[in-house]
Amino acid sequence: MAAALPSIRVLLGTPIAMGPGKARLLEAIRQQGSISGAARAIGMSYRRAWMMVDGMNRNFRKPLVETAAGGRRGGGAMLTALGGEVLSRYRRLEDKAAACCRDEIEGFASLLGDDGIPQLPGDWMDED
Amino acid sequence: MAAALPSIRVLLGTPIAMGPGKARLLEAIRQQGSISGAARAIGMSYRRAWMMVDGMNRNFRKPLVETAAGGRRGGGAMLTALGGEVLSRYRRLEDKAAACCRDEIEGFASLLGDDGIPQLPGDWMDED
Repeated sequence: MAAALPSIRVLLGTPIAMGPGKARLLEAIRQQGSISGAARAIGMSYRRAWMMVDGMNRNFRKPLVETAAGGRRGGGAMLTALGGEVLSRYRRLEDKAAACCRDEIEGFASLLGDDGIPQLPGDWMDED
Repeated sequence: MAAALPSIRVLLGTPIAMGPGKARLLEAIRQQGSISGAARAIGMSYRRAWMMVDGMNRNFRKPLVETAAGGRRGGGAMLTALGGEVLSRYRRLEDKAAACCRDEIEGFASLLGDDGIPQLPGDWMDED
């Protein structure tokens, strides 16, 4: 396994209003057209995806995700205009932070071991 | 409760080699002089703190935390030179990312609701 090079991931807010896990879920909802399809596509439980969507919808001025009336599991969901705006702003912020800190990130890489980074359970998900 | 303003938090590596939770634990170890004291000071279980220290010690070229021989719970622990360096590099990187993205972070704040951000269980900890 190649060593995992450090990349920057940005979490916004304390507690987290937006981070890589939520951004990934929003993208999957846009692609899949439903919360259940999005959860499946990124290997997340439906319950967890639903709770994350519910949290985002409450935390922002208006909902980021609109679900079809009825709320069946396969009932369909799409990003609202605000959802699309939050997602693109978040991605721009990530890119800018990574670009402005490139030297520091490379310096950090030199301190890591060569064997790649073993993963702790759940380690990848910012919102866990 | 005042609205939680978005602040930037940086996670390094995929999976996470260093993030706010690990940095906080390293600082607490430096202050408290033991893993058990550090865990208590930041409200983390001893087991979780020990696992995080063990993970960091494996992920970097050399250990970040040195524990006293014997390994008793109260046995004492301190940051190594590398541990101190990783911690200060991480804090500098955080500060730089926040400074360079100040406008974007403020723009993001304008999209959040006014009621503060409800916390999901475990939401604050990057490594959960």
